[in-house]
Amino acid sequence: MNISHIEHLGIAVKSIEACLPYYEQVLGLKCYNIEVVEDQKVKTAFLKVGQTKIELLEPTSEESTIAKFIEKKGEGIHHIAFAVPDVAEALAEVESKGVQLIDKVPRGGAEGLNIAFLHPKSTCSVLTEFCDNK
Amino acid sequence: MNISHIEHLGIAVKSIEACLPYYEQVLGLKCYNIEVVEDQKVKTAFLKVGQTKIELLEPTSEESTIAKFIEKKGEGIHHIAFAVPDVAEALAEVESKGVQLIDKVPRGGAEGLNIAFLHPKSTCSVLTEFCDNK
Repeated sequence: MNISHIEHLGIAVKSIEACLPYYEQVLGLKCYNIEVVEDQKVKTAFLKVGQTKIELLEPTSEESTIAKFIEKKGEGIHHIAFAVPDVAEALAEVESKGVQLIDKVPRGGAEGLNIAFLHPKSTCSVLTEFCDNK
Repeated sequence: MNISHIEHLGIAVKSIEACLPYYEQVLGLKCYNIEVVEDQKVKTAFLKVGQTKIELLEPTSEESTIAKFIEKKGEGIHHIAFAVPDVAEALAEVESKGVQLIDKVPRGGAEGLNIAFLHPKSTCSVLTEFCDNK
């Protein structure tokens, strides 16, 4: 496994519009993109801090996993995404070590990345994603 | 405000011993220090990934805020810490913008850093810390 850095942190929010003033005007970060990811039923706002993006995730439907997360745990940090050279290889490696996968093969995520999620059962309860930009 | 990067992520775990094999043997990160922070009633294990440390936080007492977090929300990401040039100046700036503070003045944290927490009420529900290493 060769993780270079934290690619992004996903943060579940009820409203991007309500939270952006904190990130931009208080913390001084800059939102450089807002994008709807239809198949995950979320609207996403991207800000960068050092090597890492902050992705604010607002549910666009009550069926969204983000809506269910907020209902159960409240707003807050939802997942951590590690940058790897090749998501498919990384999945094969962690699966060989007994990690349960949510995504058996990489799929398309926001910003054109290849992504896949590991199951929190195998990651000490932290929903964990691998990303590559191949 | 001049945040350079995410200094660390605090992750609440019931047992560092139980979680380290995932971080080390599956993700390939290296734990380089384990430290008890008496006044926060936690044991902390440090791993580095890119610019950012992962701090695993295990409660050493049921009175620990980490124990209470785990009881309420389960294990998972507990807080995000931003590196700033000067914590006292950063606190003054965000307070002038209406942010509620947990720590009005910087205090000593793990690894000899100056740290201070902002209140999640003012940070879209994400417990947020500033750190400097002056």
